[in-house]
Amino acid sequence: MRTLVLGLGEGETTDSPYARYFNPRMAPLPGHVLEALSKGPVAHELLAPFARAGALQEDGHGLAETAYTLAPDGSARIACLTEMPGVTPAMWDWWFAWHGSEAPRYKLWHPLAHVDVAWADGEGDTGRYVGRTSNIVEYVGARRMNVGVRFVAPAAIGFDAGDLARRGQVAICGRCLMRDLHMEVGWLVHLIRPVPGGSEMRSRFWIGGPHVNPIGMTGRVGRFIGRTAAMLRPFSVSQATELLIHDAQEMNHLAAFLPALFAEFGPDATGSGS
Amino acid sequence: MRTLVLGLGEGETTDSPYARYFNPRMAPLPGHVLEALSKGPVAHELLAPFARAGALQEDGHGLAETAYTLAPDGSARIACLTEMPGVTPAMWDWWFAWHGSEAPRYKLWHPLAHVDVAWADGEGDTGRYVGRTSNIVEYVGARRMNVGVRFVAPAAIGFDAGDLARRGQVAICGRCLMRDLHMEVGWLVHLIRPVPGGSEMRSRFWIGGPHVNPIGMTGRVGRFIGRTAAMLRPFSVSQATELLIHDAQEMNHLAAFLPALFAEFGPDATGSGS
Repeated sequence: MRTLVLGLGEGETTDSPYARYFNPRMAPLPGHVLEALSKGPVAHELLAPFARAGALQEDGHGLAETAYTLAPDGSARIACLTEMPGVTPAMWDWWFAWHGSEAPRYKLWHPLAHVDVAWADGEGDTGRYVGRTSNIVEYVGARRMNVGVRFVAPAAIGFDAGDLARRGQVAICGRCLMRDLHMEVGWLVHLIRPVPGGSEMRSRFWIGGPHVNPIGMTGRVGRFIGRTAAMLRPFSVSQATELLIHDAQEMNHLAAFLPALFAEFGPDATGSGS
Repeated sequence: MRTLVLGLGEGETTDSPYARYFNPRMAPLPGHVLEALSKGPVAHELLAPFARAGALQEDGHGLAETAYTLAPDGSARIACLTEMPGVTPAMWDWWFAWHGSEAPRYKLWHPLAHVDVAWADGEGDTGRYVGRTSNIVEYVGARRMNVGVRFVAPAAIGFDAGDLARRGQVAICGRCLMRDLHMEVGWLVHLIRPVPGGSEMRSRFWIGGPHVNPIGMTGRVGRFIGRTAAMLRPFSVSQATELLIHDAQEMNHLAAFLPALFAEFGPDATGSGS
């Protein structure tokens, strides 16, 4: 059995054709992320609730594109903007399917925090992620956690699929799982849209509060257990900042070499990687 | 009844001649504020207790002009310096009377946190603020609160009024109220003095600890209730940083357009705004 550790090891270095993309010198946090961390939590009205997630596909920016808050319903809302020259939305659509079948792929994304990944269905790289659950071991801040993302179709949480396609946008949407606690704890969206010279990612997380229930228990009893759990163990401001930092790190880091990775291993590559 | 929300809405945009000064892209936090936030709480001796508030009118700077601390008496002390080129102390004296009668005026100051304002006496713009109480709805950090400021004459808390006038200084002094809790919780001072090219504001807050009593109950029983309340619900370090951030944001933001606003709506304006 593999020992789960940070970094490439135990043959991962030599066995992986993409190991040369593993770079532990990560991209620095952009200035707007540092500013958001300095400002502290903002008014919750500035960040839309999960029920309005679909509005992310509209033009323009909100008043708080990189920020975090604790809302009165007990949930944290986190927003992060990532500017990605040379990157296309299609590259991220490919990435989310491609990375999930092999830990060394996943480790490229955040070399200092990503430990392991595997699809819950036991299958390998099928070229798909919607409808599948990615089981993850990663650090967020100093905490090592067994988490997961159950990816859903954008239309399932309020996006207009036709409009996304017309605008050339990709919305990666998922239910966030804490496998240690056997709980579904929140939602994430990464909306990627073309901008001149590349694309930008509008990431959103809604964690805790009404978004908590035992995995698979979406009925009344599940919601009651979830609300109790959320009250007993509320998501904290420091956890919100750690999630914002983690997201900004991994998205900025990968964006710098995603075009090259996509060219070498993506669907149009001539090599054997994809 | 008006819905109380962030931002200009419900006719506020078109009805307000000063709406063009509403700018949700706020000024960034100055470097010395970011440094103070990075440093964390300082030795409480570096920040004078409320009993020495009047010393703010003396020349020079203290050892900690932008900082926060928790003092042994259970109170938080917060200090913030704002440098304001082109601004005069008289502009702030005018602002504190002018902004309090209309929410759209108040919202100019901190577009991402200010929700509502009204004078407790029910009167409108009388050109005065000392002796009046301003009832406020605002976010500090992620918390939306019903608070207030009962403005007092500087001489009431230890300033020398004649000396302030001789030096061309303005001291805005007030008792801070938490209307949700029906408590007086602290004191604030904004001392504005001329410097070459403009003026500087030395803001101070003393919150919690011995400064808490039920509103209007200043006697022994009130002080006892206040001390108990302060012990049960102490002001936290994160609240202190949020107050420092909020103060730095609103003062730097307004200072950038206060001269233009004063010229257009102040006492010497020829328009109809004041």
